[in-house]
Amino acid sequence: MKDSKTVTPRNRRATQARWGEATLTPEEQHRMRREALFATAARAFNESGYYNTTLDEVAKRLNVSKPTLYYYVKDKEDILVECNRIAFQHMKDVLDEVEVGTQTGREKLTHFLSRYTALMTNHFGACLIRTGLKPLKPESRAKQRVLADQLDKALQRIVKQGIEDGSIRPCDPKVVSYAIFGGFNGIANWYREDGELKPENIYSGFLDVFLNGLMPAETAPVRPKTRPPKK
Amino acid sequence: MKDSKTVTPRNRRATQARWGEATLTPEEQHRMRREALFATAARAFNESGYYNTTLDEVAKRLNVSKPTLYYYVKDKEDILVECNRIAFQHMKDVLDEVEVGTQTGREKLTHFLSRYTALMTNHFGACLIRTGLKPLKPESRAKQRVLADQLDKALQRIVKQGIEDGSIRPCDPKVVSYAIFGGFNGIANWYREDGELKPENIYSGFLDVFLNGLMPAETAPVRPKTRPPKK
Repeated sequence: MKDSKTVTPRNRRATQARWGEATLTPEEQHRMRREALFATAARAFNESGYYNTTLDEVAKRLNVSKPTLYYYVKDKEDILVECNRIAFQHMKDVLDEVEVGTQTGREKLTHFLSRYTALMTNHFGACLIRTGLKPLKPESRAKQRVLADQLDKALQRIVKQGIEDGSIRPCDPKVVSYAIFGGFNGIANWYREDGELKPENIYSGFLDVFLNGLMPAETAPVRPKTRPPKK
Repeated sequence: MKDSKTVTPRNRRATQARWGEATLTPEEQHRMRREALFATAARAFNESGYYNTTLDEVAKRLNVSKPTLYYYVKDKEDILVECNRIAFQHMKDVLDEVEVGTQTGREKLTHFLSRYTALMTNHFGACLIRTGLKPLKPESRAKQRVLADQLDKALQRIVKQGIEDGSIRPCDPKVVSYAIFGGFNGIANWYREDGELKPENIYSGFLDVFLNGLMPAETAPVRPKTRPPKK
């Protein structure tokens, strides 16, 4: 099959056909192809590094010509913005879902962390942590920083709720959120699909550390059943 | 003062004089200037990003000419390798010191984490986490990966010792090390010198989470005083 470097109506149809979903509407096809593009690019960024990954490489992995990519995205930065946005959106969906629920703060936290572990062990989560916002132009970076801050605040609200409903012991929600996000974000840096630790082991092991701590029972400090009165 | 772009014996002496330590031996001067160079470069990488920082920028911050830099380092990668090496060495020194001590595993862990927080809130630690090994050529990256693995293993040994001496409750040392390194490494990503949280608050807050967990006392699981018999 010819893989022309210039896009004409004829070879555009040909390359699109290779992404092939004949029964979809043109809008659905366009959306699905964009999704395939971002998933493929995120994987490439994770494997080769963002700076080392060219649009040629992404096109090659998708088995399309580079000009075809420009039909879906503006440039490499545009792809990274979208990959990050997908990861942020995923977390925001989970947080929106748990925030309105009637569970205790601790239950909300564990539910969120289960989904967060899933994100950190997939390509979009890994891309967000390992490439992230740094290569973006200041404007895009500032916009995505707002999303990161919203997530941070949402986790702090959940921890705060847990302290108020007694399901989490009194602590500084900000410091705790940083410790939790740090620990779980780190997964994206070392997790490998073919590694020894599976997502479910990581989730249960991490949750155990963050909920129960490392102190053995006999030396654990005595904790008041209710919060001390305010001074 | 003239800031020539070409190095002649005369202006080399002139630029060196600006770094000025007249009473030091030439070897001491060379070492101190290299240290100033790496500290300055690490700060520049953290502020502007590694890829955006040119050797011109580093030279300008040091108030020397760019050719003068080549008297101390080969290229930008050489600087990053050395910045990372300084951070690794700092941690290795602490781990070597605590590993031979007679403290319990938990005491060793808390001692290490106190020093690790200090590293994560200085420029070399921040450079290691925020720039790290990714921009390095494969050979340098592989060499520094060995250092990272050694630290990882050392922390796991400390946790393992803690489990054996009863100062840390039974857990998977590998998973726990990943959670701890993740949480503490994360500090380098969000810590700002002029921020609200000071290194001592971060250390005590994080240590509290990792040692005591988030579970309030009344719902904490009953933990056996001794480890369960092996099956």
